[in-house]
Amino acid sequence: MYHAMTSLGFASESPYQGPIKLEGDPKGASVLVLGAGLAGMTAALELRNAGYKVQILEFNNRPGGRNWTLRGGDSFTELGGFTQTCDFESGLYINPGPWRIPYHHRALLDYCRRLGVSLEPFIQLNYNALIHASRAFGGAPQRIRAIRADFQGQVSELLAKVTQQGRLDEAVTREDQEILLQALRSWGALDRDYRYKANLISAQFRGYARAPGGGLDALPLPGEPLALSDILKSRVWRYLLNFANYNFQTTMFQPVGGMDMIGKAFAREVGDLIRYNCKVTRIQQNDRGVTVSYVDTASPAAVRQAQADWCICTIPLSILSQLPVDVSAAVKSAIDAVPYAGSVKIGLQFKRRFWEEDEAIYGGISYTDLPIRQIAYPNTGFNRSGRGVLLGAYIFDGANAYEFTAMTPAERVARAIEFGAMIHPQYAAEYENGIAVAWHRVPFALGCSGDWSEEARITHYRNLCQIDGRIALAGEHASALPAWQEGAILSSLDAITRLHDRVMRT
Amino acid sequence: MYHAMTSLGFASESPYQGPIKLEGDPKGASVLVLGAGLAGMTAALELRNAGYKVQILEFNNRPGGRNWTLRGGDSFTELGGFTQTCDFESGLYINPGPWRIPYHHRALLDYCRRLGVSLEPFIQLNYNALIHASRAFGGAPQRIRAIRADFQGQVSELLAKVTQQGRLDEAVTREDQEILLQALRSWGALDRDYRYKANLISAQFRGYARAPGGGLDALPLPGEPLALSDILKSRVWRYLLNFANYNFQTTMFQPVGGMDMIGKAFAREVGDLIRYNCKVTRIQQNDRGVTVSYVDTASPAAVRQAQADWCICTIPLSILSQLPVDVSAAVKSAIDAVPYAGSVKIGLQFKRRFWEEDEAIYGGISYTDLPIRQIAYPNTGFNRSGRGVLLGAYIFDGANAYEFTAMTPAERVARAIEFGAMIHPQYAAEYENGIAVAWHRVPFALGCSGDWSEEARITHYRNLCQIDGRIALAGEHASALPAWQEGAILSSLDAITRLHDRVMRT
Repeated sequence: MYHAMTSLGFASESPYQGPIKLEGDPKGASVLVLGAGLAGMTAALELRNAGYKVQILEFNNRPGGRNWTLRGGDSFTELGGFTQTCDFESGLYINPGPWRIPYHHRALLDYCRRLGVSLEPFIQLNYNALIHASRAFGGAPQRIRAIRADFQGQVSELLAKVTQQGRLDEAVTREDQEILLQALRSWGALDRDYRYKANLISAQFRGYARAPGGGLDALPLPGEPLALSDILKSRVWRYLLNFANYNFQTTMFQPVGGMDMIGKAFAREVGDLIRYNCKVTRIQQNDRGVTVSYVDTASPAAVRQAQADWCICTIPLSILSQLPVDVSAAVKSAIDAVPYAGSVKIGLQFKRRFWEEDEAIYGGISYTDLPIRQIAYPNTGFNRSGRGVLLGAYIFDGANAYEFTAMTPAERVARAIEFGAMIHPQYAAEYENGIAVAWHRVPFALGCSGDWSEEARITHYRNLCQIDGRIALAGEHASALPAWQEGAILSSLDAITRLHDRVMRT
Repeated sequence: MYHAMTSLGFASESPYQGPIKLEGDPKGASVLVLGAGLAGMTAALELRNAGYKVQILEFNNRPGGRNWTLRGGDSFTELGGFTQTCDFESGLYINPGPWRIPYHHRALLDYCRRLGVSLEPFIQLNYNALIHASRAFGGAPQRIRAIRADFQGQVSELLAKVTQQGRLDEAVTREDQEILLQALRSWGALDRDYRYKANLISAQFRGYARAPGGGLDALPLPGEPLALSDILKSRVWRYLLNFANYNFQTTMFQPVGGMDMIGKAFAREVGDLIRYNCKVTRIQQNDRGVTVSYVDTASPAAVRQAQADWCICTIPLSILSQLPVDVSAAVKSAIDAVPYAGSVKIGLQFKRRFWEEDEAIYGGISYTDLPIRQIAYPNTGFNRSGRGVLLGAYIFDGANAYEFTAMTPAERVARAIEFGAMIHPQYAAEYENGIAVAWHRVPFALGCSGDWSEEARITHYRNLCQIDGRIALAGEHASALPAWQEGAILSSLDAITRLHDRVMRT
């Protein structure tokens, strides 16, 4: 029994081994935390619990940082000066930053539990959502279930055929070949002759031309599979990669009511430590402590200072690299080595949830080769009448992100509607209002997340994470989980663990 | 645009084309509905709206029939006399009957919308749940994600190899072979040499020996794939079949608070028409109407009668076949032709949600070749401290269902704990109480659902669905969706549409 348990190995798989234990008395040592995102608030919460005197300086007028939700009435101003006000109906929202939580993000989930954040499933893969390739299938979007079943079925058929021809004799024993044939028939939805065809076997996976019903004329009719050659040439198989990725596997979560419920929950604990609207302008340290210069963003003329024995700095490297910071050359090189990914998210409100009513798409994501890349449907408020907000574009990195970042917000929204209407013609009649966040223009981050190259990681990553004198860096950029909130929290827990060790030794 | 829409074909795929329209005045015609399950209540709701005088006779003291939820304080008595009382903590429940709603069950979803039933996702496939084969992998349960990725990866590797060897030249063009290789590498998580191995490529799908983390020692380590031969011989690939089945694809739903929220919502509309505790003993008809004899189950000595112009009979065939019913020989043969599937569900309450806390399994189903067959985790209340109820067995048909049906309820629960502990050793310390429903012993159904053979369907199905004089049958047994609530509703809509046509013509 014990063997069976440990062989599951979940405990050893996760780098998070339960709530942090910072033992010993720091004897009044003080820590200045820069940034009230998840990394900063995790550090503040745990360090105060461990006996430190903690204060946090935060640029925004709210907690959370990239843990952020936009609702009706919210407004924000991007770099370049455009101010947008969100006109969503009450209860509707988008999460411009992180929007999903994998089951294996044990640290984040543990904080959600401890802080009372309610979770609901985030639907990553919806078999009835769409895959759209502009130049394939006559431009018509295809159901994910059809692409998936038809590819898997025809791959299985090919392998079954060569197995029967004895062409696997070198690689697979005869005994295993027999079982492999059974497995391929089952997994690939093949018929008795190991063919993938239009029949009620394949229909059980790809869907029907007419689904089974009730009463007199209830019998189902199969549809015609897409040809393997068409699937291959369309390149839509690229999307299949996402569906079983460890980062996107069921069960994923989102906080009920918006991702910022997490930031708000942290702030209920440490909000009293946060000074908002503080723009850090300089970070100095010496043998005795750290001095941080900052200005109040409402009255930037007066430079203020905050001091502490130690500093946990969670400012994104995109911004930190522009500040004078007293750190070693190695750390400074690391800070400068990481470009930030561009990302654009566009929320669109519609008069009705036509994706559910007309097309039976409940949550999940449709994929397209158009510049909007994805259309993501809300994972809450299912099956109700009334308005809905969908994510009309999610562009992560690449040329499309730059193009959309260069547009005005109104242009971004207009383009998202234009492209989206090629997939959902209902856009034209149902659209009401929209909002567009281009992360390279978001003043508090200047990008979505640290975009480490393999080379930069080899050269600079450990330097970035080393405590430099009295300063330790934390955030998703100081993790192997870039762009994920879990990376921010794990990085913070690691930094404060090492900081506390140092305090206990000195 | 229009082409793109219609090519999605959802509207033509579903047999449900929106709310039923029964036009014309039935001029006071009356309908007696037998059974207040979903089929019966759908008929009652729509027929009353269309102007009929409707009454319903129901055996139970509650609406819903097999749409049923057991909560703390509920009790029920099965055939054989055993009475169980459910001791679950407030808010915890199991659904002994239907427990999930596919996105393509358009009729059921439309009634949920119209009747205000809130839905939440039902997690069918959880990649982090377990597959357990008693005689494979040393008896240790394996993560679904590992089995799935390792099978798909090694199948892809085999097909890539024969492709490179030119052995697909007859079946696939050279141009397509090039793309196929790329697709297999992507889909199968193969390395540059088209091999599926222990590396960070396969780990992105099967999971890690050590997952990526944050701070200094954040780098991930891959785990070792299971050998294809071991997967084949273990036969666990049989479970993979379920994961992409049309009936079980994302997005599935469950009503918030229990499946009986649907039955209760219907009863808010038609509850005034229902007479509870009525056991039908005889169904007679002549040219002028239908007379149904019944007894009050509390005072069965006095036979009562209800009369109407027409009858919609939704009594399960398992019971109807035992009653004297005035129908043609063909309909009688059809009623007698359908055995009922056995099914056993066992709910177990534990002191804590150890499957989440210890093993990161949030919702979904683990599969085993042990007689309990499945362990299903609750799809609600995620990530909270405190008690939880899981489904400790879901046995559908087959010898195990008969074995468990033959046991006393207490024995069933004891066996579920014994077997389940082989997968989750925490059972021993955490178990609190349980309840077991064996459908062959449920007095109002005598089985889980109609178990049509292909032969019986050819011979009898259309006869069963024909209106016989003044009597029309409805229910999941009169559908091509046996055991599904959608089948019950579609069957009912079809029956009342034809009944109304007949009334309008006469």
